[in-house]
Amino acid sequence: MFRYKQELRIPGPTPVPPQVLARTSAPMVNHRGSAFKELYPRVLERLKPIFGTVEQIYMVTGSGTAGMEMAVANLVSPGTPVLCLVGGFFGQRWRDMCRAFGAEVHELVYPWDKAADPARVGEYLKEHPEIEVIFATHNESSTAVINDIEALAKARGDHQALLVVDAVSSLGGVPVKMDEWGIDVVVSASQKCLMAPPGLAFVSFSRRAKEVALKARTSRYYFDLSIYDRYWERNEPPFTPNISLVFALDEALQILEAEGLENVFARHRLMRDMVREGVRALGLELLVAETYASPTVTGVKVDDADQFRQHIRLKYGVEFAGGQGPFAGKIIRIGHMGYATPLDMLTALAAIEMTLGRPGIATAAAERLWLEA
Amino acid sequence: MFRYKQELRIPGPTPVPPQVLARTSAPMVNHRGSAFKELYPRVLERLKPIFGTVEQIYMVTGSGTAGMEMAVANLVSPGTPVLCLVGGFFGQRWRDMCRAFGAEVHELVYPWDKAADPARVGEYLKEHPEIEVIFATHNESSTAVINDIEALAKARGDHQALLVVDAVSSLGGVPVKMDEWGIDVVVSASQKCLMAPPGLAFVSFSRRAKEVALKARTSRYYFDLSIYDRYWERNEPPFTPNISLVFALDEALQILEAEGLENVFARHRLMRDMVREGVRALGLELLVAETYASPTVTGVKVDDADQFRQHIRLKYGVEFAGGQGPFAGKIIRIGHMGYATPLDMLTALAAIEMTLGRPGIATAAAERLWLEA
Repeated sequence: MFRYKQELRIPGPTPVPPQVLARTSAPMVNHRGSAFKELYPRVLERLKPIFGTVEQIYMVTGSGTAGMEMAVANLVSPGTPVLCLVGGFFGQRWRDMCRAFGAEVHELVYPWDKAADPARVGEYLKEHPEIEVIFATHNESSTAVINDIEALAKARGDHQALLVVDAVSSLGGVPVKMDEWGIDVVVSASQKCLMAPPGLAFVSFSRRAKEVALKARTSRYYFDLSIYDRYWERNEPPFTPNISLVFALDEALQILEAEGLENVFARHRLMRDMVREGVRALGLELLVAETYASPTVTGVKVDDADQFRQHIRLKYGVEFAGGQGPFAGKIIRIGHMGYATPLDMLTALAAIEMTLGRPGIATAAAERLWLEA
Repeated sequence: MFRYKQELRIPGPTPVPPQVLARTSAPMVNHRGSAFKELYPRVLERLKPIFGTVEQIYMVTGSGTAGMEMAVANLVSPGTPVLCLVGGFFGQRWRDMCRAFGAEVHELVYPWDKAADPARVGEYLKEHPEIEVIFATHNESSTAVINDIEALAKARGDHQALLVVDAVSSLGGVPVKMDEWGIDVVVSASQKCLMAPPGLAFVSFSRRAKEVALKARTSRYYFDLSIYDRYWERNEPPFTPNISLVFALDEALQILEAEGLENVFARHRLMRDMVREGVRALGLELLVAETYASPTVTGVKVDDADQFRQHIRLKYGVEFAGGQGPFAGKIIRIGHMGYATPLDMLTALAAIEMTLGRPGIATAAAERLWLEA
């Protein structure tokens, strides 16, 4: 039923606004021609306030993981001591990638339903002055936990380590203040809160990180920062980029700019709060406590979770994501990022409450919260 | 003039058919959901006859260079002796990338307006039995030269070296017979003869190449074949792919399949021959001799080439590419690949002959050739 209209409530890729999709179908242009030379820097410039930085934004044609590898390949040499904060699937990806690049990986594991503890990170760093790079996850979409990056950055004190943050599923929906918080590298991608299709990653480096990058001894070419810098001098990408997605991003940024970043962030918080309120009203258990609850995705414990969401997908046309790692089959993940509104949360909750045979319970609670907001 | 209708006659990105562009704007789907699990293997399966292989096609979200790096990162370890055949910008890219990955690079340089000589390659290999991988370019779009890959593959004799071929600007417009010719790795991309926007690369590995890949000691994650293999078991890509482009490719392949590959190849040869005939009629010099003339792009020597093509772009709305390396400013490159017809060659030639004040000369010659074809 409703195969023609699926409500995509997964933590990415997220629904793309029709006007953004329409822009992907604009005629192809020469990526070394004048039109693209104007568009390319203009679009990247407008990402700066969303990253909270004055530094350049690098665009990589690739998945979010390609953006992560741009950080690792430019900062990690064989034997570089790094600290990976691991509390979910994407924290593990940092760890696995750093290992693949020959780093000496220190792993600070925290429970998958909690955030990394800044105090513990601070202690670990004191004991390990040799650590050169910390890899953290802002929003761990696999568990619906948001980490307090500002506090983690502060916990470094005067430790030398660079801080690299995966902000793939937070940037554009949650405040990221790269310069103010003292983050050295922020990685994000097109298909989450930025409301474009997947296929572009974005990375920004602090000056200190760039200096380290120049000295890295890792094999890299596609992700080599210095090649990007060389082409940037003439406002060009080094390799044929995904031109259609740059068109799309231009349009998507216009939507974000018209709403205003603060309103965007408030909308994400409201969507989170409505989902949590509705779920609680149904007596279901939330995976993550209030303090670490992600504004972009919510995990809910449900019996036979995979069957539950399969039923909802087929019967109501609402698609949730399942659990990963220790939560596989035990939770559903409700995406509420990017092109989504509080009304969309009501339909998501409606599908859940109807499946549980309790019409109106969750939606009413969520509406009351919205009215009071 | 005509800013709203630019005839993109560059060797990629190439014009994308409107029906393909329209498919890029289909609603987003879950890349781990049932619709994509059906589409993804189906599209990749249909690339096999175009690659001329029964082996699996790997899809990488990235530029063509990402596909090249997938070959290098999986086959080259620090110190691996490799032979790069360099006769243009993209041959240099193989060389630079292999160096970046720590290979012991042997470089066989051939003139930029000629093809690699299979006999010389055979001799070089005899003198260097230690070479493990040969990197070649099928269609060197920077110079409009096509290399005889079949002959290069034969020239190996019983030498151990794997043969890796960049077929980015040939595949889908020119026959590629990976299995029959004994190529070990073929790399291509979405934005040339495959008629989709840029952003996807495709790579196929022979069994022998896959065995080598398992043993490679290079730092890699995003391009790690074994990660792709693991996800392939459940018909999924490892990282969030460019979903819109897979939709586009599905449509573009339908167009290619409807025309029939042999007809597609014949169309490309005809377009090349018409352009060459027209250019000759104008008394202009072709960069490349008949034997190595690329069916997808043609280089033409022109005085003040950059000014010449700038004039044509602004006055007639036809966009050609310029020269690279030794030919910078000395040639124009006329792209005739993918979504282009013999009629498009007439308009390209019309813009050239009008600029030279010789209306009808080139187009008449090209039409006569077409009539006789």
